[in-house]
Amino acid sequence: MAQNIYDNPDFFAGYSRLPRQVDGLDGAPEWPAIRRLLPDPSDKRVADLGCGFGWASRWFRERGAASVLGLDLSQNMIARAKADTNDSAIDYRIADLDTLDLPAAAFDLVYSALTFHYVQDFARLVRTIHTALTPGGDLVFTIEHPIYMAAAHPRWTADEDGRKTWPVNGYAREGERRTDWFAKGVLKHHRTLATTINTLIGAGFALQRMEEFAPTPDQIAENPNLAEELERPMMLLVSARKA
Amino acid sequence: MAQNIYDNPDFFAGYSRLPRQVDGLDGAPEWPAIRRLLPDPSDKRVADLGCGFGWASRWFRERGAASVLGLDLSQNMIARAKADTNDSAIDYRIADLDTLDLPAAAFDLVYSALTFHYVQDFARLVRTIHTALTPGGDLVFTIEHPIYMAAAHPRWTADEDGRKTWPVNGYAREGERRTDWFAKGVLKHHRTLATTINTLIGAGFALQRMEEFAPTPDQIAENPNLAEELERPMMLLVSARKA
Repeated sequence: MAQNIYDNPDFFAGYSRLPRQVDGLDGAPEWPAIRRLLPDPSDKRVADLGCGFGWASRWFRERGAASVLGLDLSQNMIARAKADTNDSAIDYRIADLDTLDLPAAAFDLVYSALTFHYVQDFARLVRTIHTALTPGGDLVFTIEHPIYMAAAHPRWTADEDGRKTWPVNGYAREGERRTDWFAKGVLKHHRTLATTINTLIGAGFALQRMEEFAPTPDQIAENPNLAEELERPMMLLVSARKA
Repeated sequence: MAQNIYDNPDFFAGYSRLPRQVDGLDGAPEWPAIRRLLPDPSDKRVADLGCGFGWASRWFRERGAASVLGLDLSQNMIARAKADTNDSAIDYRIADLDTLDLPAAAFDLVYSALTFHYVQDFARLVRTIHTALTPGGDLVFTIEHPIYMAAAHPRWTADEDGRKTWPVNGYAREGERRTDWFAKGVLKHHRTLATTINTLIGAGFALQRMEEFAPTPDQIAENPNLAEELERPMMLLVSARKA
């Protein structure tokens, strides 16, 4: 079972103040890159795994999705998503992605943002998603990049010239990583990039595209703090199709 | 045009003493992982891009390849490959992968080991390879991992616990990297992992599998120095198929 840190009061209070939670999708600098990976949601049956406050679930409906199933482990998240949504075609439910069952061939698009790195058994989840998609259906997801997650002390250092430098160690050692992020000991599961991609291909997906998010010059001009994301890959964005 | 560092006498002298040049394929710890990516070479027409001393070219023939075209930029390499080979079905030639032309649909397998990171125009080369393969043909290659190549000072550091740690910076800034390796200013071309994979897919390849080489426990027991390769991804191994 995944750790339910999002129902920890301290975590939830801090997390809720993140720009991407206050401002929604436009508060996430990687959102334009995600949009380029997404198919047209028109008339599609969408599952949003780790839907949080429901920002993306509502966006899919605004863009014409036939229906959206929004799932999240956190009671806090689902309660807030329901409160913020007035749309009978969006169904929010509490679910643990480590034990998820979905009906077969019931979705045309499965989407997930920054959630799968909390899942322990990624291979199981990918098989579940593959079965739940119709042929030709798409899986589009983002995770924390394995390079961002791997190290024992994942925080900025400086090289001999004083340049911001990201440390990597333990990369090949897959498994639990504990970090302090709004709460002590937030549990994530490190997998190499190769494991992530090979798991998709092994389950029957064809890789369509991947992105290692980097901000554009316009984004850096607007928010100079983003420049550091040129130094390291922080997020991995993947588009895969059920053959 | 790619830099021809391999015909620099100092470089060549040092390079020639590497275990993988003295002992051949078995001197390369990633070779067992490469073999798992390779199709059965029997009756296949093979191109070996960056063939060096011809170790792999000869291996393909030993395993039943119909013919092998071994290409390398270095006169030293090709001269040594020819001297070490007695097989009329292996054709060694000098060629620059940045300006390479190959006949259409003339190969069933294109192989390249630790060469493509010297190529400036990877997209051009991938299109050339795609055209040169028969439908269903395979491209199997290894490169220095982008995480290994990216930093301004790509050498081991230590984290606050003294653990071997690999530095990453400048990851999103693609282009030239200069390092000192047997000679000053060896020129490599950094591309993100996403660019590498998307270039393959964009040219019409289906990604089959990728590996970020990590030594096995048996390999580490035999050669304890290899343990450091668990800390960082040093090599990327890719298998892709022409659809």
